[in-house]
Amino acid sequence: NGDAQAGEQKAVMCVACHGANGKASVPVYPNLAGQNEKYLEHALQAYKKGERSGGQAEIMKAYISGLSDEDISNLAAYYSSMKP
Amino acid sequence: NGDAQAGEQKAVMCVACHGANGKASVPVYPNLAGQNEKYLEHALQAYKKGERSGGQAEIMKAYISGLSDEDISNLAAYYSSMKP
Repeated sequence: NGDAQAGEQKAVMCVACHGANGKASVPVYPNLAGQNEKYLEHALQAYKKGERSGGQAEIMKAYISGLSDEDISNLAAYYSSMKP
Repeated sequence: NGDAQAGEQKAVMCVACHGANGKASVPVYPNLAGQNEKYLEHALQAYKKGERSGGQAEIMKAYISGLSDEDISNLAAYYSSMKP
């Protein structure tokens, strides 16, 4: 499992769209707060691997391209730890 | 916007994995309760259009293949109306 505190450090690039509290600022973006950790990890990896297209997928891929597998696990732990 | 009551009728095929209360039964699946309606609609359409692959994407595509755009809107309304 990831390290939520380390994830918080990496989440600075996520907050513009997904909110400081994990509630999306734009209705077409997903809330992340309280989402299942394993699903968040899967979804981030799917964007990174190019398994998602359309919508904001290219933007997500660009953001995630610089993240390690550990960073991704930590982000997943951080958002899943938030109150939905 | 979709019709949450009509969505509930269609959601019988979703509950095995996403839970009767919109909380996933398996950690690698996403919770849907309280998720943004527009995001849910986008995600369902993305699966239907084949814009997602890997993980359970083929299963989601198969489930969604028989749903109309209206069904998808209604399902999004139903799950977004649930308490997260």
